[in-house]
Amino acid sequence: MSPRGRFITLEGGEGVGKSTQLGALAEALRKRGLDVIVTREPGGSDGAERIRDLLLSGNEDRWNAPAEALLFAAARADHVAKTIRPALERGQWVLSDRFVDSSLAYQGGAGGLGIEAVRAINAFGIGDDFPDRSLVLTFEGGAERARARDADGSDRIGGRSDDYHRKVEAAFHIIAAEEPERVKLVDASGTPQEVTERLIDALADLLP
Amino acid sequence: MSPRGRFITLEGGEGVGKSTQLGALAEALRKRGLDVIVTREPGGSDGAERIRDLLLSGNEDRWNAPAEALLFAAARADHVAKTIRPALERGQWVLSDRFVDSSLAYQGGAGGLGIEAVRAINAFGIGDDFPDRSLVLTFEGGAERARARDADGSDRIGGRSDDYHRKVEAAFHIIAAEEPERVKLVDASGTPQEVTERLIDALADLLP
Repeated sequence: MSPRGRFITLEGGEGVGKSTQLGALAEALRKRGLDVIVTREPGGSDGAERIRDLLLSGNEDRWNAPAEALLFAAARADHVAKTIRPALERGQWVLSDRFVDSSLAYQGGAGGLGIEAVRAINAFGIGDDFPDRSLVLTFEGGAERARARDADGSDRIGGRSDDYHRKVEAAFHIIAAEEPERVKLVDASGTPQEVTERLIDALADLLP
Repeated sequence: MSPRGRFITLEGGEGVGKSTQLGALAEALRKRGLDVIVTREPGGSDGAERIRDLLLSGNEDRWNAPAEALLFAAARADHVAKTIRPALERGQWVLSDRFVDSSLAYQGGAGGLGIEAVRAINAFGIGDDFPDRSLVLTFEGGAERARARDADGSDRIGGRSDDYHRKVEAAFHIIAAEEPERVKLVDASGTPQEVTERLIDALADLLP
């Protein structure tokens, strides 16, 4: 029987080159002889795709923030149960375009629901199947924004900046500081090849 | 401005006469001059009805237990935001055929997810809008089953009985013991009129 595969997620705000790096990282892992499947959120399983349709249809205010976060968590539970966990058990590596850390950053941090509360509903849904490594593509400047977090350690950063994008970036920095082994920030500047090399470096301890 | 209405839910296992009592209780409250709306779960708002469709379609194993519980919690968050909370704020009384305590009993208790864990994801979704009073129709004999709960106070009752229905009944007893002010067991034996009178008695402290 193959050893259990590894579960890697690629995260980041808008415009950091995530799509390009997803393909390049999958290719780099395959060149190392790994059996890699690529998946994405929201979606990635039949049930999760149907929830995705619910999330993407209707008006912007169709769902309030808690309902939306619970729908994402339900879709993720299905994605894990039907697609990700079976692949890992077959020994495959799973590379997902976004996963739980997007919910923590967008809905927990930038959306004001609280990173810890969003982590808890996701833990209910996926159990121990958090990513082995979450790679967050980020640009310089995010760190300063993260340092603006509340001195009391609160994960609520709402109202700190006038820019939703900056809040998301700051939330990713907070999550990486809270879970430094699981979540790694990766500098997205430079050529695509340079970025891919940094991603591989940030996985070096997991590679066979 | 009207004072905020009260939120009452009617709960219970199968075959306890819940549907009959729902209409009778609404009528009895209206006779007291209250403005009552009747709603139901799963459903009760446009978004929640769409989630209900997802829950009821497909095979029995379509959703795993955590995904199903998260979908119920998402539907409930929408039901509260779009239907229940606005009615309460208008001063109406809201009477719901099933609500959060069904999730606690069926999915948390009988389904093995744990009453406390299911309560937590629902609190994420509905905040403070738990029912002012949850009336659980029950037959004698449920109490003995409830006393069979784990001596360590665990809310996991899976494997304790060979009958899912009995597990649900036992879970309702546990919930009522944990939240005696919010959740009242009401004897469902006797004539429908007798049962309705008991339901009204169990609300007496809330009536104007």
